[in-house]
Amino acid sequence: MAGGPEIERLVLLLSKLPGLGPRSARRAALFLLKRRALVMEPLAAAMADAAAKVRPCSRCGNLDTIDLCSLCADSRRDGSIICVVADVADLWAMERSGAFRGQYHVLGGLLSALDGVRPEDLSIGRLAARVPDEAVEEVVLALNATVDGQTTAHYVAERLEPTGVRVSRLAHGVPVGGELDYLDEGTLAAALKARR
Amino acid sequence: MAGGPEIERLVLLLSKLPGLGPRSARRAALFLLKRRALVMEPLAAAMADAAAKVRPCSRCGNLDTIDLCSLCADSRRDGSIICVVADVADLWAMERSGAFRGQYHVLGGLLSALDGVRPEDLSIGRLAARVPDEAVEEVVLALNATVDGQTTAHYVAERLEPTGVRVSRLAHGVPVGGELDYLDEGTLAAALKARR
Ligand SMILES: [Zn+2]
Ligand SMILES: [Zn+2]
Repeated sequence: MAGGPEIERLVLLLSKLPGLGPRSARRAALFLLKRRALVMEPLAAAMADAAAKVRPCSRCGNLDTIDLCSLCADSRRDGSIICVVADVADLWAMERSGAFRGQYHVLGGLLSALDGVRPEDLSIGRLAARVPDEAVEEVVLALNATVDGQTTAHYVAERLEPTGVRVSRLAHGVPVGGELDYLDEGTLAAALKARR
Repeated sequence: MAGGPEIERLVLLLSKLPGLGPRSARRAALFLLKRRALVMEPLAAAMADAAAKVRPCSRCGNLDTIDLCSLCADSRRDGSIICVVADVADLWAMERSGAFRGQYHVLGGLLSALDGVRPEDLSIGRLAARVPDEAVEEVVLALNATVDGQTTAHYVAERLEPTGVRVSRLAHGVPVGGELDYLDEGTLAAALKARR
């Protein structure tokens, strides 16, 4: 590539980002090279900084620079209710909705026969242990309204049955086949309110 | 944002990249945080590295880690012909076509009444000086087949007239209204061959 191996490597690594193909990676690289001080250097620093500091919370699986994470450590949040999400992206979506003030548990994915994701690949055992440990009264399963999401919800509900905890699911407002992370905040808030 | 200011800052800076909105910036941030060693740290390093080393070539305007750039410094390339492009992205596109073995000149944009880009904002004077200095025999104007591109081509051709250099343009194959950087390599090669 004209411009040497440094630019080539930058383009290659940028093209690994979701949503960026080779062409948009080239555009992004040029965009950065033209905005060295304003964007490129700050972004490089922010990336190195986050890479060095951000870790999964040992309790809930949320990503944060502190452990326990800022949500687990927030005593104003309701510890008697846990919202179970597949991924940190879904936790962020729930937080943007502003409708949930309890604690979270990030499963780390969804059960999937196709992708070979088995129960032991997800943090379901850790969730089951949290229920008695933290005297949790309700677990809200905020999982995608897809086959994998609903299979996972069913499996988690079964695994939690021995604990006697109340298990609810997001209901109203989640479109069939829809993915949580794509929903607007209002729909998420409505779905939470009407959980069953 | 859940996860602290480091993640928030990372998302904010990623959302400045062309083609990434807030949602895809969040996805990209999570993607990176989950691939710390494999993608995030190497990308941060590649960005810092390129930001520190890459500069515009003092002769042609190409971006490279050396000055003169690797193309200007390549004595196997034909110094009697210069290909004029608006942007480094177009230079890269020409190089990918493999059809051009001369030298380049990057204008740094296109004349645009709408965007207020005037002749003195582009490196046209420097191009005019290169023609006698480097005994250039032909200048190929490889500019977008848009109004701005053709206005710029016309203006540059006029400015080069006193030098007596032969001025040609990409012809066959560039779709009307089409942008160079979107063209496939074969079309670019054909357009170059049939230049008029
Ligand atoms: Zn936590
Ligand atoms: Zn050069």
